[in-house]
Amino acid sequence: MKAITITEPGGPEVLTWTTVPDPVPGPGEVLIDVVASAVNRADLLQRQGFYDPPPGASPYPGLECSGHVAALGEGAVGWEIGQPVCALLSGGGYAEKVNVPAELVLPVPEGVSVAEAAALPEATATVWSNIFMGGGNATSSNVFMIAHLRPGETLLAHGGASGIGTMAIQLAKSVGARVAVTAGGPEKLARCAELGADILIDYREQDFVDELRKATDGAGADVILDIVGAKYLDRNVKALAVNGRLAVIGMQGGVKGELNLGALLVKRAAITATSLRGRPLGEKASIVAAVREHVWPLIGAGQVRPIVDRTFPMSDAAQAHRALEAGEHIGKILLTRP
Amino acid sequence: MKAITITEPGGPEVLTWTTVPDPVPGPGEVLIDVVASAVNRADLLQRQGFYDPPPGASPYPGLECSGHVAALGEGAVGWEIGQPVCALLSGGGYAEKVNVPAELVLPVPEGVSVAEAAALPEATATVWSNIFMGGGNATSSNVFMIAHLRPGETLLAHGGASGIGTMAIQLAKSVGARVAVTAGGPEKLARCAELGADILIDYREQDFVDELRKATDGAGADVILDIVGAKYLDRNVKALAVNGRLAVIGMQGGVKGELNLGALLVKRAAITATSLRGRPLGEKASIVAAVREHVWPLIGAGQVRPIVDRTFPMSDAAQAHRALEAGEHIGKILLTRP
Repeated sequence: MKAITITEPGGPEVLTWTTVPDPVPGPGEVLIDVVASAVNRADLLQRQGFYDPPPGASPYPGLECSGHVAALGEGAVGWEIGQPVCALLSGGGYAEKVNVPAELVLPVPEGVSVAEAAALPEATATVWSNIFMGGGNATSSNVFMIAHLRPGETLLAHGGASGIGTMAIQLAKSVGARVAVTAGGPEKLARCAELGADILIDYREQDFVDELRKATDGAGADVILDIVGAKYLDRNVKALAVNGRLAVIGMQGGVKGELNLGALLVKRAAITATSLRGRPLGEKASIVAAVREHVWPLIGAGQVRPIVDRTFPMSDAAQAHRALEAGEHIGKILLTRP
Repeated sequence: MKAITITEPGGPEVLTWTTVPDPVPGPGEVLIDVVASAVNRADLLQRQGFYDPPPGASPYPGLECSGHVAALGEGAVGWEIGQPVCALLSGGGYAEKVNVPAELVLPVPEGVSVAEAAALPEATATVWSNIFMGGGNATSSNVFMIAHLRPGETLLAHGGASGIGTMAIQLAKSVGARVAVTAGGPEKLARCAELGADILIDYREQDFVDELRKATDGAGADVILDIVGAKYLDRNVKALAVNGRLAVIGMQGGVKGELNLGALLVKRAAITATSLRGRPLGEKASIVAAVREHVWPLIGAGQVRPIVDRTFPMSDAAQAHRALEAGEHIGKILLTRP
């Protein structure tokens, strides 16, 4: 088969569409004949050599894909040859074929094309696990998952126009929460508003702490979903409400920041930081099962949909990476099999 | 009545045993004829002018007391005149009488003297709410309370010989957790061991990150109960296990510290900071109810007991503060009515 390989750590030009050995599904694995994959920010880090795949994962980039079931490994149940599916991967989505544990496969939801379904696994699993799991939804190994956004609460999603942001807006609105977003410029904010965002903050022009305070009568955000990290840490704590919860899922603005524990204590607030890829299979499987139970019906009902900005042929992954790095996109950037 | 008043912010000498107006119980309040109170670190801050009582609270220090019910305000139910009780206060424990909402009163547990019971409310409520509440035990306004220490997990309690620490050791052992403590010197560590602590770390001589790593085959602590704050923040994150939870309840080592979000993310760990006094009545009432349900039977069965270091007459509160500041105590320092 062909796959995008990383010839050496570097810029987009190191992504090369090349012939590699065909994968054979191991026990419990499903082999997917790939129709599409999607670009995630973690792929840029992997390309640069800063985010190696976990042991046992495919060396090729791509954390999600859609396609058709091509073969089933020994003991892989729940799926049929030829069935249209999408999946959460530890790597290898930028390829014609990929193996994935059967528990991390999802059916293509009603009303969504097979290619579009590649936009769903990472965004739905990340948003659901970070802002909704907790309390009764938590898996046994994660009873402390904390954010648990509830109806009437306010979510602040940084990067509201990103793949994660556009999904967070829709899912938070679907449970009756109020949604504030930050994004760069009026065009992105207008798209966030179309998806349901209530409070629109242009981070290039406005201070999100001030704007959120004004829009919430001083209360702040009950949950913040953050992709910036260190650069926003102090302001995120300021923007939290009493009993607020900050969920950090990206660190585009650095890793180490000053934390004011006194401010956190006065608010009795909490901070967590998570990633999907590093989790053990059991935790990922619980998250995928929760997404299938809670999010898939919302997609089937047309309440939530994948937001796709642009599609590139997989062999042009370099161009797709340049597009993500340019930051002009709204929603997900897809790669389809050439 | 007489009470300890703070004549002006300052050292222990500003604590003056003086005549003040008798309190009259308001609606829903219980008037307690005080037998004993206990000294908490927050009292030192209040005395220095750094921790003002919340609106409506007594201006006198004292966050817990024991005694007998002297009068009931309108609508205060569940208690009888003369009944021996203890209570979680927002202030006013260093006095002959104090008012408290009926929901924050607890019976003196079986096997404990009325005076000793003054050592229980703050330590039990702080430990229970910080390391056990979460998941199914959480109150509706606190579904994200995170630590939720479970059987077989490892708790690291800093200041193992303190009032909070001695209670944390006993409660964690009672649910089948493994307990690591830090304390200053062999005498304090020996007392922690008597109470059940499994891993003893002398912070004067040893690095707690290294020692905990050695004692847990590199896994670290599932829950850390921390009274140090900024000075320990980075090392606490290093000492956390995967899925670990850091609960900060004090900041003796400063308020602002550097947080490595990358380290937190790799562990999918969480940090929370809380205090009891600032919580609204409903949350405090839920915590007190949980303590009565879960901790009081353990005390009645002799599995958990109040650890009292020394007792001073209430009129000598200055001496009691000096003793707490000297840091030589093991367990709680009590004040009894002279």
